[in-house]
Amino acid sequence: MPQGKPDSVPDDGLTTRQRRGRPLVIVHTGPGKGKSTAAFGLALRAWNQGWPVAVFQFVKSAKWRVGEERALTTLGGSGAGGVVAWHKMGEGWSWIQRDTDDHAERAAEGWAQISRDLAAQAYRLYVLDEFTYPIKWGWVDVDEVISVLAARQGNQHVVITGRDADPKLVAFADLVTEMTKVKHPMDTGQKGQKGIEW
Amino acid sequence: MPQGKPDSVPDDGLTTRQRRGRPLVIVHTGPGKGKSTAAFGLALRAWNQGWPVAVFQFVKSAKWRVGEERALTTLGGSGAGGVVAWHKMGEGWSWIQRDTDDHAERAAEGWAQISRDLAAQAYRLYVLDEFTYPIKWGWVDVDEVISVLAARQGNQHVVITGRDADPKLVAFADLVTEMTKVKHPMDTGQKGQKGIEW
Repeated sequence: MPQGKPDSVPDDGLTTRQRRGRPLVIVHTGPGKGKSTAAFGLALRAWNQGWPVAVFQFVKSAKWRVGEERALTTLGGSGAGGVVAWHKMGEGWSWIQRDTDDHAERAAEGWAQISRDLAAQAYRLYVLDEFTYPIKWGWVDVDEVISVLAARQGNQHVVITGRDADPKLVAFADLVTEMTKVKHPMDTGQKGQKGIEW
Repeated sequence: MPQGKPDSVPDDGLTTRQRRGRPLVIVHTGPGKGKSTAAFGLALRAWNQGWPVAVFQFVKSAKWRVGEERALTTLGGSGAGGVVAWHKMGEGWSWIQRDTDDHAERAAEGWAQISRDLAAQAYRLYVLDEFTYPIKWGWVDVDEVISVLAARQGNQHVVITGRDADPKLVAFADLVTEMTKVKHPMDTGQKGQKGIEW
């Protein structure tokens, strides 16, 4: 249920209004479902506010997220809310012309573009989908990520999804939710299905 | 990361294809963020498959979910995917003409409509948003809910969100995820903000 009451009010010299509007770094992590799904749900709210939204999809498979991609790009093109830019590593980032099979290099290029977009204040919501993995695998340096996020100007919210979020990222983020698996149909031999998993 | 491998294959006489397509009861519970947001993210996938989707919003406040409502009804009306029906208890269920301030009665009427829609196989995805509360408060009987869900025909997926899901419902459901709060800006005095919380 919606709860509007903060547990305590900090002595940070900000008014409630200033504090309320502070842009957030949000992390959805843990082994359960819903990390990315909830991030795309947040994008609906951002779209409704008229905010420009960017999704950077750090996953290889083209099958996953097809529903979210078509829904959000349909909304972005409707003119009724914010615009939506959708970037996929798996099919090659759109701004990269040359072809490479090096995942580490691709992931680093994705992060470099995010850094440029943050510097340009290109969007108000960034969904960095499955971005914990390139950090975990050492393809993108977590200290650099935190430093770029900490230095970002304006009103730019950033949502990062994926398992095993780096403890430094968790410590830095404003809002962290862990999705825990209680029960999953795959436990009883059921595989993923369309409309639910993609 | 997407994982397609089941841990074990049950001896239930079903083929993998039959098992894969089995309609699910999904529960998003726990004290963390993302329970409803992830349910609306699932609705994007259903919409993309062309499925008719119904949302039953068991919350009083009109402010919450405005972004999701406008996004999903925009998508539903686009003709590019499934249709979307959005029902709100807070402003009175659309199919109820008379006015009542009795929340228990309203919640029971919402559940009665869901039961009728399930019997008529009116939709393929039902989002019962914050439906754990009327169950918790005794306004809707959990045994009846389980009995109706167990008897539903066809291909009807049902997602139920909210804290403190009834243990019987958790035991019955196919997929249960608990959202756990690791860190929240309200802990440091920040209140909800537009584009993020609604």
